[in-house]
Amino acid sequence: MYKITFLPDGRQVLIEEDETLLEAVHKAGLYIHSICGGEGTCGRCKLLVKKGEYKTKPTTHISQEEAEKGYVLACQTHPKSDLDVEIPLESRIEGVYAVEDIAQKSELKVYPEVCSPLSKQISLNLPPPTLQDNISDMDRMLRELRRAGYRDVKVELNVTRKLADVLRENEFQVTAMLGWEGDGFRVLKVEGDKRPNFGVAVDVGTTTLVAQLVDMSECRVLRTKATYNKQARYGEDVITRMIHAEKGGLDELHQTVVKDINDMISVLCDENGISPEDITAVVCAGNTTMTHLLLGVNPKHIRKEPYIPTFSFPSPIKAKEIGITVHEEAMLYCLPSVASFVGGDITAGVLASGMAKQEEFSMLIDMGTDGEIVFGNSEFLVCCSCSAGPAFEGGGIEFGMRASRGAIQRVEVLPDLEVKVTTVGGVKARGICGSGMIDCLAEFLRSGIINKAGKFNEGIKTDRLRKGEEGLEFVLVWADESAVDRDIVLTQPDIDNLIRSKAAVYAGAKVLLDKIGFDFESVERFYVAGGFGSYLDIGKAITIGLLPDLPKDRFEYIGNSSLAGARLCLLSEEAFREAIEIANRMTYIELSVDNTFYEQFVSELFLPHTD
Amino acid sequence: MYKITFLPDGRQVLIEEDETLLEAVHKAGLYIHSICGGEGTCGRCKLLVKKGEYKTKPTTHISQEEAEKGYVLACQTHPKSDLDVEIPLESRIEGVYAVEDIAQKSELKVYPEVCSPLSKQISLNLPPPTLQDNISDMDRMLRELRRAGYRDVKVELNVTRKLADVLRENEFQVTAMLGWEGDGFRVLKVEGDKRPNFGVAVDVGTTTLVAQLVDMSECRVLRTKATYNKQARYGEDVITRMIHAEKGGLDELHQTVVKDINDMISVLCDENGISPEDITAVVCAGNTTMTHLLLGVNPKHIRKEPYIPTFSFPSPIKAKEIGITVHEEAMLYCLPSVASFVGGDITAGVLASGMAKQEEFSMLIDMGTDGEIVFGNSEFLVCCSCSAGPAFEGGGIEFGMRASRGAIQRVEVLPDLEVKVTTVGGVKARGICGSGMIDCLAEFLRSGIINKAGKFNEGIKTDRLRKGEEGLEFVLVWADESAVDRDIVLTQPDIDNLIRSKAAVYAGAKVLLDKIGFDFESVERFYVAGGFGSYLDIGKAITIGLLPDLPKDRFEYIGNSSLAGARLCLLSEEAFREAIEIANRMTYIELSVDNTFYEQFVSELFLPHTD
Repeated sequence: MYKITFLPDGRQVLIEEDETLLEAVHKAGLYIHSICGGEGTCGRCKLLVKKGEYKTKPTTHISQEEAEKGYVLACQTHPKSDLDVEIPLESRIEGVYAVEDIAQKSELKVYPEVCSPLSKQISLNLPPPTLQDNISDMDRMLRELRRAGYRDVKVELNVTRKLADVLRENEFQVTAMLGWEGDGFRVLKVEGDKRPNFGVAVDVGTTTLVAQLVDMSECRVLRTKATYNKQARYGEDVITRMIHAEKGGLDELHQTVVKDINDMISVLCDENGISPEDITAVVCAGNTTMTHLLLGVNPKHIRKEPYIPTFSFPSPIKAKEIGITVHEEAMLYCLPSVASFVGGDITAGVLASGMAKQEEFSMLIDMGTDGEIVFGNSEFLVCCSCSAGPAFEGGGIEFGMRASRGAIQRVEVLPDLEVKVTTVGGVKARGICGSGMIDCLAEFLRSGIINKAGKFNEGIKTDRLRKGEEGLEFVLVWADESAVDRDIVLTQPDIDNLIRSKAAVYAGAKVLLDKIGFDFESVERFYVAGGFGSYLDIGKAITIGLLPDLPKDRFEYIGNSSLAGARLCLLSEEAFREAIEIANRMTYIELSVDNTFYEQFVSELFLPHTD
Repeated sequence: MYKITFLPDGRQVLIEEDETLLEAVHKAGLYIHSICGGEGTCGRCKLLVKKGEYKTKPTTHISQEEAEKGYVLACQTHPKSDLDVEIPLESRIEGVYAVEDIAQKSELKVYPEVCSPLSKQISLNLPPPTLQDNISDMDRMLRELRRAGYRDVKVELNVTRKLADVLRENEFQVTAMLGWEGDGFRVLKVEGDKRPNFGVAVDVGTTTLVAQLVDMSECRVLRTKATYNKQARYGEDVITRMIHAEKGGLDELHQTVVKDINDMISVLCDENGISPEDITAVVCAGNTTMTHLLLGVNPKHIRKEPYIPTFSFPSPIKAKEIGITVHEEAMLYCLPSVASFVGGDITAGVLASGMAKQEEFSMLIDMGTDGEIVFGNSEFLVCCSCSAGPAFEGGGIEFGMRASRGAIQRVEVLPDLEVKVTTVGGVKARGICGSGMIDCLAEFLRSGIINKAGKFNEGIKTDRLRKGEEGLEFVLVWADESAVDRDIVLTQPDIDNLIRSKAAVYAGAKVLLDKIGFDFESVERFYVAGGFGSYLDIGKAITIGLLPDLPKDRFEYIGNSSLAGARLCLLSEEAFREAIEIANRMTYIELSVDNTFYEQFVSELFLPHTD
C-alpha cells in the first residue's frame, strides 16, 4: 500500500495500487469536483502530483504542458510509490457561504400568519382525576387536546405505557409532543418538563443542500446552513447517481445525503445552543431523484423509458427510520413531486410563490440542471422539464463553478474590449458562476465579441481572444490576476453550452405555453428561482434570450423557493395540504413526445432568438 | 438446591430452599389454581407431598387429616430435601374443551353481509407504465386501490423501497396487503404471489382466553381454541394481578398473556395447515385490566381511588410491537373500553347483541367476575359494574371449577332428597361449575334443603346434610362416585358466596334502571352473556332471583359475546367504527357513589328476593 499525502491539508491515507487517487481523496474525507463519477470524461478532478511515481491514463483534459508539471485526473491515476499530491483550488469543493449568506439575509422572517407547525409541544394543564371525573388518563389528555382543536389524535404505544406515571409524577402538568401524519396528529411523547420545539426545513438539492433551523414556538427562522451535496463524489448530476445506485451504490448515496443533513443539523444546533433532541420535525424538498435517494429508494427506473419514479408523495415517516438524528420520535416529511423530472422542490416553489392561489397567470422558472417550468393560476397548473444542462451551475464550462468565493459573478466589457469582473467575496477570481456567464454572453454580444450565433468574431482587435486547445477562447482574467495561476477563459464550447442551456429553458417555456394555447404576453408574472437567482441581471438575461422580452416589473426573484416552500410546510399543516393539492393539480407535459420542442430549441440557438 | 419431581407428569425442576413449591410448579411449566396469587388465602393450590421433607405454614385450608397425608398449600411450602409431589386433580388447571366445543358449534358462521375485514390482501392487475401513462409506481398502485374504493391510503417506507422491483419482477400483477389504521388504510406489504388472508379474534378473559381463526377472504370462521389464562399463576382475579403488576410483575403478566395467545395461534395454524405469516390482523376484546396487561401497560391505578385506567381505546399497533407472532406487518386492534370496570369485552358484547341499533330497550348482563350490565337502545346506553365475585366461575367455592371436563353442570334433587348430577363430558365429577351451582340453589330452595335466607334447614332427613369443618355442608357426590376420591360438597359459605354474587348482579341491574327512571318491566330484551351462558337454566336463574321474573322469551343467550364482537370487528371496519361509537356513547354509572346499591344488595340476600 502507498501513502498519499494531500497538500496543503496534510491529510494522509493509504491506498492499494489498484485504487485511484479519487478514491484516496474520498478516504481522506476531502471533496473535489467529479461530475462524471470517475469515468474520466468530465475532466474536473484534476490533481497536481508534487512527488512520487504514478500511472495515469492519457486524457484530453490535461494538456501536454500540464501533464509535464504533474497534473493528472484523480479518477484515472494509480500510485506506484508514496505520493505528495496537491489539490488545485479549481478542483476543490469549498465553502458555500454565499448561498448561506443569501438565504440568511432574505429569510430571517417571522410567520405568525401561518403558524401551525407540523409538530407541536403542547403544555397541558390537566385537572387531576376524581371519582366524578374518572375518565382514563389518555382520554383526559385527548379531551384537553380536543379543546385545543386537535381531534382524532392517535397515541403511540410507548407513550401509552409511560402515560400514567408521567402524569402523576408531574401532577398532571405535562407537555405533549404531537406529530402530523398527513390526516391528523399522533401523540409521540409526553413529558413533564416544558419542551422547546424546533424544526428543520431542508432543500435537498442535487448540488447544494440547505438546511434551515426554525423556532416553531414562534414560527421564526433562526439560521441557515448549506453544504455541497457530497453525493457529488459519485457523480454530479442525477443521471450519474442513478447509474451508481443501480450498480449497487444506493446505500452509499443514501447514507451520504443523510450524513450531510445530520452534519448541518449538528452545526445548526451547536450554533444555536440547542440539542438535536429539540428538533421535532424535518421537512425536505428535493427533486424526484434526490427524494428517492434520501429515503433509500432506488431511482434507477427514472432514467429508463418510460421514466417511472417509485413514488411521488411518500407517507410521513419517523426521521430515525432513515437515520436523521433529531428527536427520536420526530417525523420526517417530503414534499410531493409531480413527475420524474418535476420534483418536490418545484411543488415547494409553486407553493412559496403563491401562484397556485392567484387569478393572474404566472410562470415559475427554476433554473437548475433540469430547468423546470410551471405555468398556470388558481384554476390550472401545467409544468415541464427541459434539461437545461449544468452550464449555469458551472458544469461543462472550462472554468465554471458555483456561486462561491472567488466566482466571477459580474462581467463588464469596456469599450476597448478590456474586461472588468466582480467576484463573490471580492477576492481573486477562481472561475465563473452562472450570473457571470450570462453577463458574459450579453456583454460579448453587445460589444461584438460574439455574433448572434454565439461564434467569436475573429476580426476584433484584442489579445484576449486567442486560439486555445479547443478552438477560440476569450481571456476574462489573466493568470497573474487570478487565484489559480492560469488564465481564466471562456471557450467557444463553453459559449455553445451556455447557448444550449438558455435555448432549452426558453424553448421549454415557449412550447409549454404553445401546447395549451398561451403566449408569453399572457404571462402576467414571472417567478425566477434557482441557485443564481439573486445574482441574475434580468436585463441581460433578456438580452441573451434566456427570459422573454417583457417589462422587467413582471419578473420577481424568489431565491431558493424549494427551501421557502419546505419551511412553509414545516410551519403549517395547511400549507402542506396545499402543497399536496398543488402536486395533484399540476399536469406534467412531456416535451419530448414530438418534434415541437426540438424545433423550437434549434431556433433558439441564437442570441437572443432566431428572427 | 432441591430436586422436585411432579407426579404423575414426571417433570423435574430444581429450586432453592427459599423458593416455594408454587414457584416449582411454574418452573415445571405446569398449571394449578392460585386465586390469591400466592398469598396463602385462597387454599386452591393444594399439593400432595409423597416423599421428602418440607416446611409449610399452618393454614385453615388443610384439615388435620389432610396434613397428615401430606397435603400442603404449594405457595406456603418450602423444600428441605428432594421431593416427590403429586398434583391432585382438583388443583390442576386442565383442558377447556367444553368452552371450545361450544364456541365451535355456535360460531362456524359465514358473514358475507359484513365482510370488509380490517386487513386485506388485494390482487392488483396494474397496467404496465407507458410514456403516456407514466405516473409513479406508488401512484399506479394507489390509483387501482382508489378504484377499488380505498382512498387516502398510506404506504410503509419498506414497501416503497421494494415496490419498483416487486412490480417489475411480477409484471405488475401483485398482491397488496392493506391494514386499517382507525381512519384509513395503509399498504403494509406488496408481493408477487397471491396471498391468503386470515385473521384472529381473541377474547382476552381474566380466566379463559379464546382465539378464533377466520378466513377473511370468505369471512368464514374456521376454528376456535381456548386456554386458561396462565396469568392465573400470579393471581386469579384482576385485583391480584394489578398488585402483581405494581410489584414489578408487569412484564411477566404481559409476556404470559402474549405467550398464551401465540400458543393458541400456533395450534390454530397447525390444525388448519396455514402459517402464522398468513394471519394479517388480530382483534382483541378484554376487560380494561386485561387489555392493559396485553399491551404491557401497568394497570395499577385502576384499583386505587379514583380508579383510573391509562386508556380506554388504544391506537392500533403492529402485532409484533407486543410480540404476537403473526405476519410481521399485521396490525393488532383492541376493542375500546368504557371505564375501569367496563371493558372492551362489554363494548364487544353490546356490538354483537345489536342492542345499540335497536329501538326496543335491552339489557345485557355479562356474568363474569365483574358482572357488567348495560341498558339502553339506539338512543342511549348506560352501564355499570357490580363486582359479582368469582363464585359463578368457581372462585371462593370449595369444589368450584369452570365448565370443563368433570364439572357438575346440572343438578336435580329427587323427592327423597337424593341427588342426580350431570357433568361436562359425562365423566365422574371433579367439582361444580356455575350452571350447576345455580341449579343447586334453585333445587335446594324448592325441596326445602335451604330456606329463603339460603341457610341449611337442619330439620331435613338425609345424611347428605352434615356438619363439616366450615359448618353445615351438603354432599352432592359421594367420594366413591367422584373422580377426586373425596365427597363433593356445597358448604354454607359456598351458598352464602353464591347468594352474594346473585344479589350483586340483580341489585346492579335494578339500581342501574332505578337511577335512570326505568324498571325491569320496561326491559324488552335481556341478553345474557358469559362463560356459563350456554348451560344456564333461565327458569332456575329466575327462581333464585339472579334474573328478574319476566317472561322467558325476553331472554336470549348470546354466549361469548366478547369473542363475537371481536370477530365482527375483525371482519368489518364498519363494525369497528360502530364499536368505537358504542364505547363513546356508553355512560358509566358508578354504583358505589351512594348507599343505594348497597341497600339493594342487602335486600337481595334472599331467595329469590326480600318480599
